[in-house]
Amino acid sequence: MTRDGDNVERIQLAHGGGGRMTAELIESVILPALGGGDAATLADAAAVDVRGQAAMTTDTYVVQPLEFPGGDIGTLAVAGTVNDLAVFGAVPRALSLGLVIEEGLETALLRRVLESAGRAAADAGVAVVTGDTKVVPRGAVDKLVVNTTGVGEIHPGAQLGFDAVGEGDKIVVSGALGEHGLAVMACREALGLSAELDSDCGSVAPLALGLIERLGDAVRFMRDPTRGGLAATAVELARGTGRDVALDEAAIPVNPTARAAAEMLGLDLLTVANEGKLVAVVGAEAAEQARAVLTEQPAGAHAAVIGTVRERAEMPVVEMTTLAGGRRIVQMPYGEELPRIC
Amino acid sequence: MTRDGDNVERIQLAHGGGGRMTAELIESVILPALGGGDAATLADAAAVDVRGQAAMTTDTYVVQPLEFPGGDIGTLAVAGTVNDLAVFGAVPRALSLGLVIEEGLETALLRRVLESAGRAAADAGVAVVTGDTKVVPRGAVDKLVVNTTGVGEIHPGAQLGFDAVGEGDKIVVSGALGEHGLAVMACREALGLSAELDSDCGSVAPLALGLIERLGDAVRFMRDPTRGGLAATAVELARGTGRDVALDEAAIPVNPTARAAAEMLGLDLLTVANEGKLVAVVGAEAAEQARAVLTEQPAGAHAAVIGTVRERAEMPVVEMTTLAGGRRIVQMPYGEELPRIC
Repeated sequence: MTRDGDNVERIQLAHGGGGRMTAELIESVILPALGGGDAATLADAAAVDVRGQAAMTTDTYVVQPLEFPGGDIGTLAVAGTVNDLAVFGAVPRALSLGLVIEEGLETALLRRVLESAGRAAADAGVAVVTGDTKVVPRGAVDKLVVNTTGVGEIHPGAQLGFDAVGEGDKIVVSGALGEHGLAVMACREALGLSAELDSDCGSVAPLALGLIERLGDAVRFMRDPTRGGLAATAVELARGTGRDVALDEAAIPVNPTARAAAEMLGLDLLTVANEGKLVAVVGAEAAEQARAVLTEQPAGAHAAVIGTVRERAEMPVVEMTTLAGGRRIVQMPYGEELPRIC
Repeated sequence: MTRDGDNVERIQLAHGGGGRMTAELIESVILPALGGGDAATLADAAAVDVRGQAAMTTDTYVVQPLEFPGGDIGTLAVAGTVNDLAVFGAVPRALSLGLVIEEGLETALLRRVLESAGRAAADAGVAVVTGDTKVVPRGAVDKLVVNTTGVGEIHPGAQLGFDAVGEGDKIVVSGALGEHGLAVMACREALGLSAELDSDCGSVAPLALGLIERLGDAVRFMRDPTRGGLAATAVELARGTGRDVALDEAAIPVNPTARAAAEMLGLDLLTVANEGKLVAVVGAEAAEQARAVLTEQPAGAHAAVIGTVRERAEMPVVEMTTLAGGRRIVQMPYGEELPRIC
């Protein structure tokens, strides 16, 4: 890798041409970071070992800044896609990694975020099997865009879907809300918080698959409440099932630093993105066991039962009993409160 | 969709927030263009029907301009990924589509390129099963970045790989070289060509899978010569097999308008990207049949046998007998001759 005037290694346009310099970038930066051996590890296409029914999901990550308290775009890109598979009831089996790099990006930064991606993939027990690298002229993207697509194997015990949800089912969340979105915003806005606020970005696969293995078809529906937060997930649940949803604000776990940050930024914690939380709908009789199963893992230590699915309704709504004992309707967030959060 | 002052519908940042406006964009623009029914068609994750051994490939597309003679980023994004599966010997089964849209992009342009993607997918007999849409502030990407990831089913008759290639095997190409890269460059540079030059962007899956079905294990290796062109593919073949490769320039099909454009731009046709061509290595006895099988389809009408795999070598090279009867070494292109070509 060549260095420029300030003695910093940077990605050059020529690293994207499909020739010798592309091979050098892949062999000296990308593969070592992902823990791969030879170039064949990131070939144009790869065989994937899936038994039974396959599942597929994709996400493109544009978070800014690329590194934030508690994670970076590499961790996020792996965790986010692993999580979409897990809440679909699928065991992650293979990931693809597509990079679009702005020329001039510091090679060291690229290496760090790829190392994070490699660690996150190893932790999730999934391999990056194929990839693609484009380098574009300055201004054509802002530093780095990462796509990860995941293929998984649907767990034979997973019986998930809106159709499986019934009256009286309970809503369980694996921990405190809003930490990802607020950590990124606090870092961007340089809020003077009294305590460090870390993104929760990480895999929920052990939580989600743990629930399926232990509770079977008592698990009706799962989501990771990312963009739009718990509010979007709860409204999606109400619309998808055609049933009212009741949330209990007092039961929702919240990190006090996140609450303070949300107040400073004028944001509703319910609408802020999470990147390492699981929302599960489970049969009423299994709710306490679900909470207990989640709390067995550090990532689920603050799991709580936060709501109930109600009867069918013409125009199903999400209603929350507030801390003050009042009631408010939780709405689908309208547009973009926090651009480039994931 | 709202209109701005000049009465043009444009994508707004709020279309990416994961809320109501995202749902509106997906339901009013993305799904209709892709021929999908309801929103479930582009859920966060989807089940994929794969029997036997699965294959996976990914590519991110940053071509500029988004629409060019003979295609657009939508056609390209589908064809490119379908082609990577096909040359791997896999029948395409499912695609994911990840969009990163710059706010302010004209909605009509987005609709056009998605309709192209939908048509290309239908033509290739593959469904877009899952997607992701991000909208970023002005300047964070240049208009539109598209990732497609494909999952396919490896054809049971495919026995492809460098190991399968032997001395005397023949190299067949499905048609004329360099049309994609040159069509995009000619459009960007407003070259005054005497005839229209269209990109070749399109699926090579029927060609590749046709060869496997008709010739079986006489097909040893396949590639679509995209970035780096035939030069990169031939050098990759030489290195991967550890064998010299001989090309015959007189046999290589060339479109005269492409040749003129390459001369005007000072480019070597061998290094220019193709997006709808197949390079196959086949047993010598099957070479003529392979050519004939390719010519049965319009996309392979100009197929030709253009070279031979030679004996093992310490430092394997690609040597081309030129039109003038001389010889030259074909090298791996070094860097980026044509940024944002795919």
